[in-house]
Amino acid sequence: MRISTESKPLPLRQISIQDNFWSEYIRLVREVVVPYQWEALNDRIEGVEPSHAIRNFKIAAGLEKGSFYGMVFQDSDVAKWLEAVSYLLEAEANPELGRLADEVIEIIAKAQQADGYLNTYFTLKEPGGRWTNLAECHELYCAGHMIEAAVAYYSATGKSKLLEVACRLADCIDGAFGPEEGKIRGYDGHPEIELALIKLARTTNNETYAELSRFFVDERGKEPGFYELEFHRRGGTVHFPSLDMVHDRAYSQAHMPVRRQETAEGHAVRAVYLIAGMADVAAETGDLELLEACRRLWRNIVSKRMYVTGAIGSMAQGESFSLDYDLPGDTAYAETCASIGLIFLAHRMLQIEAKSEYADVMERALFNTVISGMSQDGRHFFYVNPLEVWPEACGKNKNLDHVKPQRQGWFGCACCPPNIARLLASLGQYVYTASENTVYAHLFIGSEAEFCMADGHKVKLIQHSQLPWEGKVQFELVLENAVPFTLAVRVPDWCPEARLRINGDDWPSDPTVDGYVRIVRNWQPQDVVELDLAMPVLRIKGHPLLRETAGKVALQRGPVVYCLEEADNGPNLHQFALPASSEPSAHFDRGLLRGLQIIQAAAERAVAEEWDQQLYKANEAVRTEPVTATFIPYFAWANRGLGEMTVWVRESYGNPLEG
Amino acid sequence: MRISTESKPLPLRQISIQDNFWSEYIRLVREVVVPYQWEALNDRIEGVEPSHAIRNFKIAAGLEKGSFYGMVFQDSDVAKWLEAVSYLLEAEANPELGRLADEVIEIIAKAQQADGYLNTYFTLKEPGGRWTNLAECHELYCAGHMIEAAVAYYSATGKSKLLEVACRLADCIDGAFGPEEGKIRGYDGHPEIELALIKLARTTNNETYAELSRFFVDERGKEPGFYELEFHRRGGTVHFPSLDMVHDRAYSQAHMPVRRQETAEGHAVRAVYLIAGMADVAAETGDLELLEACRRLWRNIVSKRMYVTGAIGSMAQGESFSLDYDLPGDTAYAETCASIGLIFLAHRMLQIEAKSEYADVMERALFNTVISGMSQDGRHFFYVNPLEVWPEACGKNKNLDHVKPQRQGWFGCACCPPNIARLLASLGQYVYTASENTVYAHLFIGSEAEFCMADGHKVKLIQHSQLPWEGKVQFELVLENAVPFTLAVRVPDWCPEARLRINGDDWPSDPTVDGYVRIVRNWQPQDVVELDLAMPVLRIKGHPLLRETAGKVALQRGPVVYCLEEADNGPNLHQFALPASSEPSAHFDRGLLRGLQIIQAAAERAVAEEWDQQLYKANEAVRTEPVTATFIPYFAWANRGLGEMTVWVRESYGNPLEG
Repeated sequence: MRISTESKPLPLRQISIQDNFWSEYIRLVREVVVPYQWEALNDRIEGVEPSHAIRNFKIAAGLEKGSFYGMVFQDSDVAKWLEAVSYLLEAEANPELGRLADEVIEIIAKAQQADGYLNTYFTLKEPGGRWTNLAECHELYCAGHMIEAAVAYYSATGKSKLLEVACRLADCIDGAFGPEEGKIRGYDGHPEIELALIKLARTTNNETYAELSRFFVDERGKEPGFYELEFHRRGGTVHFPSLDMVHDRAYSQAHMPVRRQETAEGHAVRAVYLIAGMADVAAETGDLELLEACRRLWRNIVSKRMYVTGAIGSMAQGESFSLDYDLPGDTAYAETCASIGLIFLAHRMLQIEAKSEYADVMERALFNTVISGMSQDGRHFFYVNPLEVWPEACGKNKNLDHVKPQRQGWFGCACCPPNIARLLASLGQYVYTASENTVYAHLFIGSEAEFCMADGHKVKLIQHSQLPWEGKVQFELVLENAVPFTLAVRVPDWCPEARLRINGDDWPSDPTVDGYVRIVRNWQPQDVVELDLAMPVLRIKGHPLLRETAGKVALQRGPVVYCLEEADNGPNLHQFALPASSEPSAHFDRGLLRGLQIIQAAAERAVAEEWDQQLYKANEAVRTEPVTATFIPYFAWANRGLGEMTVWVRESYGNPLEG
Repeated sequence: MRISTESKPLPLRQISIQDNFWSEYIRLVREVVVPYQWEALNDRIEGVEPSHAIRNFKIAAGLEKGSFYGMVFQDSDVAKWLEAVSYLLEAEANPELGRLADEVIEIIAKAQQADGYLNTYFTLKEPGGRWTNLAECHELYCAGHMIEAAVAYYSATGKSKLLEVACRLADCIDGAFGPEEGKIRGYDGHPEIELALIKLARTTNNETYAELSRFFVDERGKEPGFYELEFHRRGGTVHFPSLDMVHDRAYSQAHMPVRRQETAEGHAVRAVYLIAGMADVAAETGDLELLEACRRLWRNIVSKRMYVTGAIGSMAQGESFSLDYDLPGDTAYAETCASIGLIFLAHRMLQIEAKSEYADVMERALFNTVISGMSQDGRHFFYVNPLEVWPEACGKNKNLDHVKPQRQGWFGCACCPPNIARLLASLGQYVYTASENTVYAHLFIGSEAEFCMADGHKVKLIQHSQLPWEGKVQFELVLENAVPFTLAVRVPDWCPEARLRINGDDWPSDPTVDGYVRIVRNWQPQDVVELDLAMPVLRIKGHPLLRETAGKVALQRGPVVYCLEEADNGPNLHQFALPASSEPSAHFDRGLLRGLQIIQAAAERAVAEEWDQQLYKANEAVRTEPVTATFIPYFAWANRGLGEMTVWVRESYGNPLEG
């Protein structure tokens, strides 16, 4: 029994992105990130610690001699690469990439054990240790990524070799795990297998995999704690001695059964991967109780634990959530991967119930934290995306040890860059979903999409979008004959006024339903829908329970959150205050980076120069001077050398001592 | 050659404190802290991990069987106890305490090795390891505390047994360390021996000890690094594996020679102990270059690295300084001991040059961080003194793991409580200093003090003080005959207007010299000096380069810094803003704790109740409501159950949306 309200994304072969903003990112993934990662996986990047990931598979396949090297989850890098490649191949033929992928798949298939087991770390390094350290060793996590890659590659190419590997692997897992006597009642420290198994179930129509996923979801957090049990069974060894994955159960969301969890806890990436998997299981099995748990955890994240940039994870320790309304800007972890996981989760919730809040968050994370994660050359990456950076303090105040004020090359633990790659390569999946007779337009991204309606009619939708810089969007309907269906167009949370025209005529702006304008119409060939989304500069305030944002304001225009950067404003950005009466104006600066809409506003700046050596003074106002504050999109910061950045700026109400 | 401007504190036997505010603290030290510590040192406190400190000495003395237990610096607890006891004994006879002290001294003397060496850890646990791990093992630190205790006990009682132990120990150290061939060119990780040796030199008139102190001061930070050298010599073992005392040279101020250091770095307690020792060496040897280094480091601390409460140490990692103008309120380390060390340093600088800025900082640290460190029952202590506490976040946001929102019992590493004890027990030393013909009144603490002027005249000064609640101070001169001398009375930095009367007549308020009103006069018996220090509520602003205080204000009245506490104002203190136009008023609340001056002010509070679940909103002002904010002295916070506290409050300029 499935949930009746569901809508589904388009297969990537049915949507092609041609967008002024996003095509360049996808090109970077295709031409820079994925090729670079291929070189990295094959240890051909000078000066970078070797990945050894392909070699591990070759050795496990008996094709080369040697021993395992790398992190315990090194296999997942190859899988993520294959997944990204699959999405690129589905969107556009690329024989060379296809050949590389086929080669790798041959090796992977040979590395698989006779019983279906596949994991080069355990095969090569701890052959007897299989399934003995689920808390720490990422076996099912790696399996999940391989399954996702297999499903993607099969969808893209129709080639079944990797899918067969994945099925044998999943069968092997199914043989080892489950509620039955003699099987392990355990679950991976890092959720991922859950959502992967649902993809596999849907692709193979084999509900065994969905059942196994549900088992993993429901087993998590039961008493007695599985991680302690396996810890004692294996004699108390630990893989990551500096962490405490065994006993810190919330780190892996194993502190209580997931259906009872009220708040998103622990490692933020793990949390959102888990909830995404829960949403998948709920959708696949019609489990409304589980769906309610997903809604509850979603609500907790977006209403109490999410940065305005769509980032999550308030602290470096455990890369994790902390507590409600605790969103420090400078010590934030705010991992790129966590925002990607939040998009995975939002996308799944959106398919279950088409409410614009999911798409709003998806868009917020995408336009801010995710693309902040990658430099404009596609070669440098942020893992950590704080909202306030003081480079001089990084390395000196140890609470900021995790913060890099400049994007770094490919890291030793290479999770974020391949995650950005697979998300951007599959961006087409996020633009629309469709149910029987409704097409939902969630994101405004220039594209050509083909829908096959329930009655068999084909509908082609050509979208033109000027986002994120202007709110003009156009949908051209390319039809052979008239087709009756509902086009549900999202009105974003950042838009105070949306105007619709159909074929040039104003379309009455009915109240939206769950954030979507629903145009029910017998569509005619060449119908054109024009959407005019007002895109004023928004002064964003944080909830009064948020400490970090008290008395402060952030600027946003469209989906893009802005920041002050030292390159435009000089150092000591904390000295800036934006008067409540100041009216920010936006204009496009073609010469800035790849061309950006910038925002300028009359502001005040505290003057330090005339203050003497006294650190504190009594009964003396700090003099301010009028300045023009220049804001750039948050995602574009740190592309012009080392400097300060802040998203939140103090708001003032006209300091009488100004001048 | 000594420095000509020096003034000296009074021996404690010549000053007796009778003060409305401070006598109670001293009583607590005498009747609660010191007796409790005695029980703790003897392992007689139920439910508290045994100290074993006295037993270690008994075992080393051959009086008991057993083995060493405790921290490597456990001996210093006994020494600090003895030092506090000495001060109490010097101020007031106490046969029972004297008997206990004599008993302990007997044991200590027996524990001393034939060659003068004294350290129970190495004697019992690593007999071959003496002087092999200066970076980590606190041998000279423990020796320093024993020497300080010995000097104090000799001054108090005239008994020389412990002083002889100290001299033999110092001679043993002098035999082992020094620039000569065959001696160790090293220095302790934790400075302390430096200032102790100067005390010993002064008490014994043996300049060898001052020379040895100078050696330790100047050896620190030379190349090649001593800690690395000894680390390799001992085969690379470490005592505290979780720290990196060997290679993190700045942690122990060993990153460069002290005369070249421009900024206060590393462990804050170590830093101020070191600079205090440097000041002692400078004073003792007339070393003006070294004095200049002290002034420079002092200036760096007080003008760039000190909290408004006189606390130092911006981060828990390394319990240390971070960088200029980095003074986060919530993650502060701000150790009680570090402020005590800052007082030691200020007191030494004040003796070298009577400038009120030293006394101002001394007073700031004393009235705020130091006494915040102890509960009003003398049984609970803060090690860490942040300026902003959100109890719910403690334990959840790991950056706050070091912060305890309530005072704790005697800790395992018991540094702060005995340090508070020895400071308060010797408080009389801090009230005055005197040079040949000038008496400097630094602190306004009710007391009777006897001075012996250069010409042999005796002068008794009876001080009455209403501080910290009112600025009225009176000095009665008790003389047999007229005595010409200068009474230099400090005008504190918090006082905008000081009025002086002598025998009821206004005394022309000449400009102060270095912050002191200098009354040059042939004093007559029964002369009375009245000082009226205006004590308005001060609105304190932080330097414009301080990020933490931007747009914020703190209230101070007299030397006392105030805070908002949840007990008076409810939770979510970040919602408060103090309008610039608000006029705070102070009044004495007899019923609050032991009676406190509180401050109330019209304020605004952001209203959370009517804000819905949205975490961020656009173009909507946060509504505020008018409230009365109640401030209490910072030192008195956390005496009324668990709750929030903040020193810095946002300042507003009349939010037009208020109401």
